[in-house]
Amino acid sequence: MSAPKFTDWMAQQQQRAEHALEAALPAAGIAPERLHEAMRYTTLGGGKRVRPLLAFAAGELSGAPVASLNAVACALECIHVYSLVHDDMPCMDDDALRRGKPTVHVQYDEATALLVGDALQTQAFDILSAPDLFADPARQLRALHTLARASGSRGMAGGQAIDLASVGKELTRAELEVMHLHKTGALIRAAVLLGALAGEVSDEALQHLDRYAKSIGLLFQVVDDILDATADTATLGKTAGKDAANDKPTYVSILGLAESRALAAELTAEAEQALAGFGSEASRLRELAHYITSRQF
Amino acid sequence: MSAPKFTDWMAQQQQRAEHALEAALPAAGIAPERLHEAMRYTTLGGGKRVRPLLAFAAGELSGAPVASLNAVACALECIHVYSLVHDDMPCMDDDALRRGKPTVHVQYDEATALLVGDALQTQAFDILSAPDLFADPARQLRALHTLARASGSRGMAGGQAIDLASVGKELTRAELEVMHLHKTGALIRAAVLLGALAGEVSDEALQHLDRYAKSIGLLFQVVDDILDATADTATLGKTAGKDAANDKPTYVSILGLAESRALAAELTAEAEQALAGFGSEASRLRELAHYITSRQF
Repeated sequence: MSAPKFTDWMAQQQQRAEHALEAALPAAGIAPERLHEAMRYTTLGGGKRVRPLLAFAAGELSGAPVASLNAVACALECIHVYSLVHDDMPCMDDDALRRGKPTVHVQYDEATALLVGDALQTQAFDILSAPDLFADPARQLRALHTLARASGSRGMAGGQAIDLASVGKELTRAELEVMHLHKTGALIRAAVLLGALAGEVSDEALQHLDRYAKSIGLLFQVVDDILDATADTATLGKTAGKDAANDKPTYVSILGLAESRALAAELTAEAEQALAGFGSEASRLRELAHYITSRQF
Repeated sequence: MSAPKFTDWMAQQQQRAEHALEAALPAAGIAPERLHEAMRYTTLGGGKRVRPLLAFAAGELSGAPVASLNAVACALECIHVYSLVHDDMPCMDDDALRRGKPTVHVQYDEATALLVGDALQTQAFDILSAPDLFADPARQLRALHTLARASGSRGMAGGQAIDLASVGKELTRAELEVMHLHKTGALIRAAVLLGALAGEVSDEALQHLDRYAKSIGLLFQVVDDILDATADTATLGKTAGKDAANDKPTYVSILGLAESRALAAELTAEAEQALAGFGSEASRLRELAHYITSRQF
């Protein structure tokens, strides 16, 4: 049986992430019902599931068991979604639309959005600390620590703080890169590392994967900035042009469109280069790099 | 050398928690500086450190190593402080004063308060997932899972959601108890269990400790409600009488002052009873029960 082609594989894995999240989140009938309903509203039924896809692809490379990998994917997505919910709140980006649906504070209320984000973050660590999830508890601890470090004040949350401080300021390309390495890059790196850690993997392989993931993380942001400047709201499923409207520095505002596209190509090549030592077991990771660089949504 | 008397022990352990937190939180000079400064502003230099005290006392019982126990205490306090920061925000209780200082959204701004709470939660899991923190990684995972379960939608965050939904409603005593078992009780139980898990402890001992902690958790809330109704703002270091002002149901509003005091005595007796099978190694836990019931601040 030959491997499914990439778009089929991706659709399957997105389904897999959806089902895993459905099972991992508390049921809407469990008290407090409104909180659990809102957690499911914002997490399920949408999203590109980029972090789960990266984790699944890295897990293929390390031979990770299905259950460990599903938990890793759910934990990553819970962290990602919590950050979106809080980022959309009035005191941050004040956005009304996300993944084509009203944001949580619009659909419910601000206090609920705050608690949904808080509880989704905890849910990530709850899922990833379940007993006997990995064959080796020390490796499971390492995955937890990697996720925490990537999400906190020296990772994703720190990136949000840098982002806040940069509104209305002129950033250099280097400063913009530091911001994105934190804001989106850290969790994308964690996605690849955690997927690999769910199976057996050497420290050397992890280093190559980290280099791949660092390129992918920046690539993802460069493409996001290009799309924000060129696509419309209906295609994006979120408000288009909001970076310019919010006076936020982006790759497009600093480098221009043509140079941003050249940078995207360069980062794709770097990602490929980092995987050069692997064989066909890294095929999905290679395909994902190309998917990210060519995505239209 | 005889053991120090309780008030001296408590002062020592509060200092110990303070120093451990100072060391565990990212330095204010590490980027992003403003976020780290705000995390330290709200976490350091105040607070009764009830959860660290409970963890230290339970750790004495299980012979927990100092470093494991310090990490447990810091993780618990980070979760507690994150919940206070978010709870004080305008979309929740909208409070301007906490531990005698302006709250984070007043001292900084709302977006920073949101990120400080988010990052402190992550910090808790970062601290508790550090490599080789416990002698047994499986026991460390159990501590992490206990903390996550106690903090999330079926624990503390869920209690906040129940609290939100109950404003302006008549609650029965049973409903009030369910709210508090989540909102404050879950993390207090986790404090005792994690302190014990930092050392060697049997499942049977954990069951007794959990019974003790459940009583203590409710006791803590009953006393809080009594103090909110009877003490002044200067004594409390936070806004007094705010429960009545916010039309929040409390033990005092449901049971009256005299019956609330009787309930506090009853819960203290239950906590003592749960420790009956332990010897002098549980002295500090017994003393803490009495301290909580008799505290004036």
